[in-house]
Amino acid sequence: MNIRLYERLEAYYDEMVSIRRYLHQHPELSFQEYQTAKYIADYYKALHVPVQEQVGGNGVVAKIHGGKPGKTVALRADFDALPIQDEKDVPYKSTVPGVMHACGHDGHTASLLVLGKVLHEIREEIAGTIVLIHQHAEEYAPGGAISMIEAGCLEGVDAIFGTHLWATEPTGKIQYRTGPIMAAADRFEITIKGMGGHGAEPHRTKDAIVVASQLVLALQQIVSRRVNPLQPAVVSVGSFIADNAFNIIADTAKLIGTVRTFDEAVRDEIEKEIERITKGVCLAADCLYEYTYTKGYPPVVNHEEETKLIVDIAKQVSEVTMIEEVEPRMGGEDFAYYLQKVRGTFFFTGAKAEEVSSPFPHHHPRFDFDERAMLIAAKMLGTAALSYLTK
Amino acid sequence: MNIRLYERLEAYYDEMVSIRRYLHQHPELSFQEYQTAKYIADYYKALHVPVQEQVGGNGVVAKIHGGKPGKTVALRADFDALPIQDEKDVPYKSTVPGVMHACGHDGHTASLLVLGKVLHEIREEIAGTIVLIHQHAEEYAPGGAISMIEAGCLEGVDAIFGTHLWATEPTGKIQYRTGPIMAAADRFEITIKGMGGHGAEPHRTKDAIVVASQLVLALQQIVSRRVNPLQPAVVSVGSFIADNAFNIIADTAKLIGTVRTFDEAVRDEIEKEIERITKGVCLAADCLYEYTYTKGYPPVVNHEEETKLIVDIAKQVSEVTMIEEVEPRMGGEDFAYYLQKVRGTFFFTGAKAEEVSSPFPHHHPRFDFDERAMLIAAKMLGTAALSYLTK
Amino acid sequence: MNIRLYERLEAYYDEMVSIRRYLHQHPELSFQEYQTAKYIADYYKALHVPVQEQVGGNGVVAKIHGGKPGKTVALRADFDALPIQDEKDVPYKSTVPGVMHACGHDGHTASLLVLGKVLHEIREEIAGTIVLIHQHAEEYAPGGAISMIEAGCLEGVDAIFGTHLWATEPTGKIQYRTGPIMAAADRFEITIKGMGGHGAEPHRTKDAIVVASQLVLALQQIVSRRVNPLQPAVVSVGSFIADNAFNIIADTAKLIGTVRTFDEAVRDEIEKEIERITKGVCLAADCLYEYTYTKGYPPVVNHEEETKLIVDIAKQVSEVTMIEEVEPRMGGEDFAYYLQKVRGTFFFTGAKAEEVSSPFPHHHPRFDFDERAMLIAAKMLGTAALSYLTK
Amino acid sequence: MNIRLYERLEAYYDEMVSIRRYLHQHPELSFQEYQTAKYIADYYKALHVPVQEQVGGNGVVAKIHGGKPGKTVALRADFDALPIQDEKDVPYKSTVPGVMHACGHDGHTASLLVLGKVLHEIREEIAGTIVLIHQHAEEYAPGGAISMIEAGCLEGVDAIFGTHLWATEPTGKIQYRTGPIMAAADRFEITIKGMGGHGAEPHRTKDAIVVASQLVLALQQIVSRRVNPLQPAVVSVGSFIADNAFNIIADTAKLIGTVRTFDEAVRDEIEKEIERITKGVCLAADCLYEYTYTKGYPPVVNHEEETKLIVDIAKQVSEVTMIEEVEPRMGGEDFAYYLQKVRGTFFFTGAKAEEVSSPFPHHHPRFDFDERAMLIAAKMLGTAALSYLTK
Repeated sequence: MNIRLYERLEAYYDEMVSIRRYLHQHPELSFQEYQTAKYIADYYKALHVPVQEQVGGNGVVAKIHGGKPGKTVALRADFDALPIQDEKDVPYKSTVPGVMHACGHDGHTASLLVLGKVLHEIREEIAGTIVLIHQHAEEYAPGGAISMIEAGCLEGVDAIFGTHLWATEPTGKIQYRTGPIMAAADRFEITIKGMGGHGAEPHRTKDAIVVASQLVLALQQIVSRRVNPLQPAVVSVGSFIADNAFNIIADTAKLIGTVRTFDEAVRDEIEKEIERITKGVCLAADCLYEYTYTKGYPPVVNHEEETKLIVDIAKQVSEVTMIEEVEPRMGGEDFAYYLQKVRGTFFFTGAKAEEVSSPFPHHHPRFDFDERAMLIAAKMLGTAALSYLTK
Repeated sequence: MNIRLYERLEAYYDEMVSIRRYLHQHPELSFQEYQTAKYIADYYKALHVPVQEQVGGNGVVAKIHGGKPGKTVALRADFDALPIQDEKDVPYKSTVPGVMHACGHDGHTASLLVLGKVLHEIREEIAGTIVLIHQHAEEYAPGGAISMIEAGCLEGVDAIFGTHLWATEPTGKIQYRTGPIMAAADRFEITIKGMGGHGAEPHRTKDAIVVASQLVLALQQIVSRRVNPLQPAVVSVGSFIADNAFNIIADTAKLIGTVRTFDEAVRDEIEKEIERITKGVCLAADCLYEYTYTKGYPPVVNHEEETKLIVDIAKQVSEVTMIEEVEPRMGGEDFAYYLQKVRGTFFFTGAKAEEVSSPFPHHHPRFDFDERAMLIAAKMLGTAALSYLTK
Repeated sequence: MNIRLYERLEAYYDEMVSIRRYLHQHPELSFQEYQTAKYIADYYKALHVPVQEQVGGNGVVAKIHGGKPGKTVALRADFDALPIQDEKDVPYKSTVPGVMHACGHDGHTASLLVLGKVLHEIREEIAGTIVLIHQHAEEYAPGGAISMIEAGCLEGVDAIFGTHLWATEPTGKIQYRTGPIMAAADRFEITIKGMGGHGAEPHRTKDAIVVASQLVLALQQIVSRRVNPLQPAVVSVGSFIADNAFNIIADTAKLIGTVRTFDEAVRDEIEKEIERITKGVCLAADCLYEYTYTKGYPPVVNHEEETKLIVDIAKQVSEVTMIEEVEPRMGGEDFAYYLQKVRGTFFFTGAKAEEVSSPFPHHHPRFDFDERAMLIAAKMLGTAALSYLTK
Repeated sequence: MNIRLYERLEAYYDEMVSIRRYLHQHPELSFQEYQTAKYIADYYKALHVPVQEQVGGNGVVAKIHGGKPGKTVALRADFDALPIQDEKDVPYKSTVPGVMHACGHDGHTASLLVLGKVLHEIREEIAGTIVLIHQHAEEYAPGGAISMIEAGCLEGVDAIFGTHLWATEPTGKIQYRTGPIMAAADRFEITIKGMGGHGAEPHRTKDAIVVASQLVLALQQIVSRRVNPLQPAVVSVGSFIADNAFNIIADTAKLIGTVRTFDEAVRDEIEKEIERITKGVCLAADCLYEYTYTKGYPPVVNHEEETKLIVDIAKQVSEVTMIEEVEPRMGGEDFAYYLQKVRGTFFFTGAKAEEVSSPFPHHHPRFDFDERAMLIAAKMLGTAALSYLTK
């Protein structure tokens, strides 16, 4: 059956690329993926695959009912884009100003859609059910996974598999890990409330930009001085906004950032330290502040048996030339929630073409990936589903 | 003649307030003051005062030709607003989101319009010509003055007077100074070019927000360490923009700010120091930068004779209860350009009502002023013009 | 054979304590351990164990040639003391002012000497050779290990084992770890060369304290922004000296600090980053600098097979009540060099008596340890050697 | 009489140089000038000039009683040195490690001693009394002036004159100013109390060096953001001490610095702001602090009449080629106390030789001055005394 699966996926590879490029040109931000959701649903409808829309938001769930009874396995692909201006010079460049598929979710979607089509074609041979979860809003907490689960997308599901195309690892590599593979990813916002005024009269003001700049530097000490060096942790300020005329002293400055950890005690300590530091820096400048810390996705913790299955499958897919146990990644993923409910594993599919020596990282304005990797992802996930049902 | 001038100004005081409040509700940004310019010109046209529009941009110049021959004196009022969100709770609050008359130019305009009307009414008694310069774009370099002068607004003018309502000084106070009264006001922009990426992977990026924050702090040392403590100088960063998703590390960060000085050597040194500091901070972080420094208005330097005239006049205006020689102000004013061409003086008219204990400073979102001060300004400028022509 | 080993070690326990206390009373500083080396050599000579003196300095190497042919295994104990004044109140207190065995090397030596005696007694049953490496100068870089290796102490050796008594972990605990167990420990010095002057005239100076303060903060970014969050690293400035009168601006400021890493690439990157940051911060302030980075010992990286052997052995030694996989320690050890040449492992032997609730840490003037732990160390190392040769 | 004064001073110039160089080689710190005081007193004793020792500490007061009755005028020279390592390469370099006459007080002393000798020689012609105040401890608050005044050195004195050799102004220039000529000079000490520990374990510590570095940077904002740009002010940290082994994290760090102002309100505000900033920075890092602010010398405020006298005299001394009204200097001087009690003036005597293009500033390790200026100072002060008594 795997042979047939692979042949058909290869035959449809051009379609996979077309879909991906269409999506790449029409990215939509998290929780606003109305057209993308419709596109996905329409694809399945045209094939007469049963599909459910607006699952926990913009989520779409299709089901392949096999010709024989059996277990139920889910495959998941996310489909939201990011608020980044596409700076690539390619024909399939984003057509939406300031919005871009800079993390490969277009590829995840194309890969799963075509895999769904092939599984539908060979459905009579399948023993059990395959649930195709097209998830919205992975990039923005609280994420789409939690609401799709609440809406029932995991009902009856025995195991789940998912992958992320990874543009800085070579095409042909599969990366796996039992236990924690991705970090807890939290979000914080700090607004410094100074006192604005004329740029020429600093002594009549409380300069929110100077205070927020001090804060950005002081926050570096959380990782460098407060957290055990053996405990991985990241505190990043992603956004600093104090947008005024040049001759005005800023009344307020707003910082937005993320915290990544693998340990709950470290996570809690950082939440408190950010506030302590903010309070101190504001006291020094006689300013006020607002602080909110929003816990995002928990760590993604892979199950052992399903992870071993992926390693076995990787050995069968001819395009896979390297299989590697990876260090945990600091990024967050709401795939974490599925794994809190059912068994499964999340792995990485390398997507850097051989000729690319310095790939742009994920979330970069010039991010791109090797489209051949979509085929590998489809083969891996398809085989995982069939193998799981066969066991 | 002064008595009649004062009586009529008092009689039209309600109109002055109405005009001011209308303008306050309809503010327009520098170089975009199309409706305000039309409003001013229409006012004069309705009175059959000769008026010239689009003088060096949106500038408007009206002329009162006296019944007798004589010298020519100019009075100037500016009429642009600022990119600030009006946060006052008053009936005449700005109706334009993000735009506000937060520096009193609405008051300057109302004061000069009504003064123009009165001067027009008593024109037969006047020996000489009074030029009413309604200037656009004072808030944003290169300013409107320089282009209005190039367009000829000072042709034939022997002297010029101007005032600024000052909301943090009590109504009834006139502040004057011979020599430098306002600073050179320059503008700088720095763009830090790091390398963006995912918020969880700082080591693959060059974090532009951290670098720009370091730069903001390092710039404080220009005034605290590099400039002679006896030389007044200000370096303010008014805008810090790195607007990204929370989980992204900033690719670039943009700082915009102002420099105020009274001494040309200090001015040049600061221009160079900003670049040296930027270069060093960027080298430390392996980032690139772009830096532009735009020299704005020169210092406003008042002439002695005309300044003395203002002091004399202040003693005649009954509402003036305090006359004060003032320290130079760090703010810039393109009135400087007029004084490079013709003799004259620029003074401050207090505009804080007695009952206001803690007035909001100029350029503050809750800035407002005591409207009675408009009457004082009109009396001061009107008397200055008449006295100058009479001498 | 292990039973006999244990019985004899127990029988000689009092001698072990006597040796340790004698050495404790007669400590010698690193590279000056002449009497200690002679004491060790004399001990073996008296037993007619072949011994080599002055191996790479003050090192002493004894060899137990087994009665049967086989592999060669080495055991290592270090024997230098520290420049610390002994403040304990015990009969065996140091008799040398300002010098003290404050890290337990006296215990390591006593343990290995008595173990050597026992192994010598049972040598006929042993298949192979056991090399007893008594190493000088562990406390002071470049350390004694590197020169003993150069002098040939590892010639023919197949594997090596070593342990450190650990006075803050309970007696009965063995701590092990495959891979990195102790960090690379480096030292750096930075001198900022500004331009001094009078405290009232900052503009005529280049303030070295301000520059060095900026540098201290900027160095925090190495760990927070430049190093992979999954790679443990520490950069600490331990000393900041700019010692002047209050009314002087500092000409120079000196920073001294340490860097701890487990990965050679990270280590090299940090060495370069410190210089880059220093260079940039100095450029921004028009100052000069001097920078030296002195590499200390590399990380101690344990081999998997030998580490597993230690875990197995720990289960056999009845005094061992806890076996714990330990997090890497950030401290350094020149045992690292042996493991770069031959297979082996380094482990910790708890040495805190039950009745001690708050033990003094290593290098403390009141440091002491539970002497019973010497017996455990001897049993562990002896069994390790015999088991390795038997395999 | 002036002619004779000048001839004799010129004749004794070599002695003046010898004295200055002897003192330069034997500098003593403030309040420890025992040998210098003895040297001064011995000089007068050898001449049989009445001299009083230990006046308010190490102060020395000699009196020239003129042959005729008259008023009493005082001349003052200070004689303490600084804790600076002399880095000059000259034969008369300091012989005391870490101590140096880096502010020219050796020159003041040599100048006044020789002037005293000459005045003694011509005493019969003098109408009145000349008090020669050799003051200790000018460099270190509370200074010697206040205790010498309390000890009576100004009793009966009608006016006082003093000068400072100024090595960055050309020899031949005299600088004067009526009103404030030197700033209020205060001293502050801040001790940051963190929690020390091992350099490899920052998370178990509170790193006092990082906190103090943040504080140094935050203090820059007092002048750059909090003080009115038109109000001269300086805040300098002169000393930063956290002296530890390289692999230790600092328990405490001590900052010592100075504040210079001309306005009492600004002075008080800065005292409070330093504490607010310290409190905030410590709160952010969960550290404690100790803060002391010691008000030092008040501003030196010259009297008008005596200042005019100095200008007149400067015109008579042939070596004086430039007479300049100066801006106030930010340095402090306890000459301020004398001027609070009696009339007088303090002026600057240029001491940069023509061939020196880039003189080292006062308090610099390579500071030196043009010895010819001592002769000018002696002529100026001598003439001032004689003229005052003659008037």
